[in-house]
Amino acid sequence: MIVGGGFAGLACARALDGKDVDVLLLDRHNFHVFSPLLYQVATALLNPSDIAYPFRSIFRRSRNVRFRQATVVSTDPENRTVRLAAGDDVAYDSLVVATGSANDYFANQTLAEHTLGMKTLAEALGLRNHILASLELAARSASAEERRTCLTFVVAGGGPTGVEFAGALAELLHLVLGRDYPELRREDARVVLVEGLDRLLGQFAPPLGTYAERTLKDRGIEVRTGTLVEKADDDHVVLSTGEQVPTRTVVWSAGVRPVDPLGVDDDRRSRSRRLRVDPFLRLEGAADVHVIGDAAAVQANGGGELPMLSPPAMQAGRYVARAITARVEGDDAGIPPFRYVDKGTMATIGRRSAVADIHGLRLRGSLGWLTWLFVHIYYLIGFRNRAVVLASWSWNYLRRDRPIRLILRSRSDRLTTEVDPVD
Amino acid sequence: MIVGGGFAGLACARALDGKDVDVLLLDRHNFHVFSPLLYQVATALLNPSDIAYPFRSIFRRSRNVRFRQATVVSTDPENRTVRLAAGDDVAYDSLVVATGSANDYFANQTLAEHTLGMKTLAEALGLRNHILASLELAARSASAEERRTCLTFVVAGGGPTGVEFAGALAELLHLVLGRDYPELRREDARVVLVEGLDRLLGQFAPPLGTYAERTLKDRGIEVRTGTLVEKADDDHVVLSTGEQVPTRTVVWSAGVRPVDPLGVDDDRRSRSRRLRVDPFLRLEGAADVHVIGDAAAVQANGGGELPMLSPPAMQAGRYVARAITARVEGDDAGIPPFRYVDKGTMATIGRRSAVADIHGLRLRGSLGWLTWLFVHIYYLIGFRNRAVVLASWSWNYLRRDRPIRLILRSRSDRLTTEVDPVD
Repeated sequence: MIVGGGFAGLACARALDGKDVDVLLLDRHNFHVFSPLLYQVATALLNPSDIAYPFRSIFRRSRNVRFRQATVVSTDPENRTVRLAAGDDVAYDSLVVATGSANDYFANQTLAEHTLGMKTLAEALGLRNHILASLELAARSASAEERRTCLTFVVAGGGPTGVEFAGALAELLHLVLGRDYPELRREDARVVLVEGLDRLLGQFAPPLGTYAERTLKDRGIEVRTGTLVEKADDDHVVLSTGEQVPTRTVVWSAGVRPVDPLGVDDDRRSRSRRLRVDPFLRLEGAADVHVIGDAAAVQANGGGELPMLSPPAMQAGRYVARAITARVEGDDAGIPPFRYVDKGTMATIGRRSAVADIHGLRLRGSLGWLTWLFVHIYYLIGFRNRAVVLASWSWNYLRRDRPIRLILRSRSDRLTTEVDPVD
Repeated sequence: MIVGGGFAGLACARALDGKDVDVLLLDRHNFHVFSPLLYQVATALLNPSDIAYPFRSIFRRSRNVRFRQATVVSTDPENRTVRLAAGDDVAYDSLVVATGSANDYFANQTLAEHTLGMKTLAEALGLRNHILASLELAARSASAEERRTCLTFVVAGGGPTGVEFAGALAELLHLVLGRDYPELRREDARVVLVEGLDRLLGQFAPPLGTYAERTLKDRGIEVRTGTLVEKADDDHVVLSTGEQVPTRTVVWSAGVRPVDPLGVDDDRRSRSRRLRVDPFLRLEGAADVHVIGDAAAVQANGGGELPMLSPPAMQAGRYVARAITARVEGDDAGIPPFRYVDKGTMATIGRRSAVADIHGLRLRGSLGWLTWLFVHIYYLIGFRNRAVVLASWSWNYLRRDRPIRLILRSRSDRLTTEVDPVD
């Protein structure tokens, strides 16, 4: 039984497809999301269906992988069962926990209440609605001050997600202000990117972080490094420097925390609250439970934990699939400990600009951008999605258009900017 | 000022684009919807953005048409102002009311509460979520009876919308049951189409209604003509014949009522509650207010009212634009009364099957289907949407796939089939 169909769980299920085991994949959604592109859904470039793929389609031809849409609320390791939110228990022989992570606000309640996340497809759609509704509110506002507040967007967190989103948002605003919104001027819009470290893209080599900062600044984005978002309310944020920014939109990409249904004590978790695993990715003290992806604290070769990114998650998923297959075949001794192969990291900043850090090979600008394009298209699931995403990107690049600017409110929107109280 | 950006309001605004008048278009959404294809969104074939287009993109190059997202709650004909839901008043010189229609349940509260509509994009998405969630619930159910209830879909209303939706739904079920859902058998699914008249497609020539009924029955759909849906609750409907059908899904396409913010008395309305207009489409007793589309009771050439369909709406929109332009140019006498030119009606039933009734020329089967395809692609707004829809249809036709099967719940979903209480 695999709980969670993100990069880790899906890679594991795919690697077990066709093998001599029965696989039950559980996820609370009926689709896998290619999460590195969520920021493009949030900025009205891609449709949800371009980066999401139903699990049942993925395993349509499989004879041993089944899917069930369900939320696991707890586990019972004694009886080897999991409890579903609907109330029923399901038994397993071997459990793979791949439940990922969620936004973390470091116990700051004002941030939890007044910021918008981008971790799930529903959050990305909520963010899209919020941004577009903010533009409509600004367009109808008679007060210059209110207009500026509606058009100020603060992004908390200067990692890849924050950098990519800030770049794409600035591009969107540049495209529509003064054109689709003749009432609004480009000068009224502000994008403020706030990062606690003293440079952007902390995971990358320092020159790439510097390059990203310069590129974003050239595109009109205000970058505040060495700064934290301390407090947020309906129309302000307060930064750790004391600066107050009037805004109705704070996007949260500054912290995530692992999520799992195991309910184990803190002493079986690392400092980041990820579950401690042995070198074979088994939960400490439970040989029939593997943990992979963001939920697991895996020691990196150079010390520290592997980052919460898709490459280690996918490699761990495939490793656990091999380990399970070997055990079923009675070949338990043959599997060496898990070893992560770092293939590099990359982030796009906007039109013809990206950074990639591949074993010390540092790409930037157009070359980095083309590498980014190629890698993302390659990893997207399913022929249809690849074709649609490529077409959307070409359209965006050639026509400088953002076609999907629909305000379609969702029940799960955490913050809603209602354009009108009656709907 | 044009209130409402459906087919009527949009046609009027487009015809006034470039003319010597200032046009303010108001709509409660920021996009126009090509509503004849809503049923394809509801059956997971098209994305919302394929059939919706932001008003601001449509009028990006216009120098005299402006858009504002707003809901009009009342009008003040004395002062020539409208009141918006946000509270402010906006003045007009000439008002065009194009506010359309909404679902009508004939004061039957159980139907209002326990059926799903397909009149708006949000409703179509809610219906898609409901259908897909019903399949997931059926797949996890241990009881054969519950499984059948989840897989029974009742469609109320055998007009074009009901016929098209029933055909597309049967196709979707045929595609995924037993394939993406190996737990479910095609024989467990039922689609029941209920129509009050004694034949389907009452607006069409009788042989076409007979053809549609035969085609739907060949595809496994149960058709009940001369029958009404009388009562609905959480897991049943009761038909006027006394038949009880266990189901959790009743789709409502059996009635609409006009909607307008004018607040005028019943004596200025027709029996269908549409606003009475003079032969020049002006509200009776108000020369500066035009009413077009579903909200207006326009006398047809052959007696009766024009149907609530897009062709009369678009023709009325263009007519009113001409009338307003003529009046501005001081050429008030030159505009003859509105005259509707009937170009025919059509409806698709499914894969390579449709009916079209064009001045007595009755097309059916593949020829009707190709005609339907051509006309719908032609009328879709914007090059991008046409290309995307054509690509989706080709994909569906060639691969027999429904790519967009994502359950993404919406706050406006009226009925929700929660796959899980925790989300």
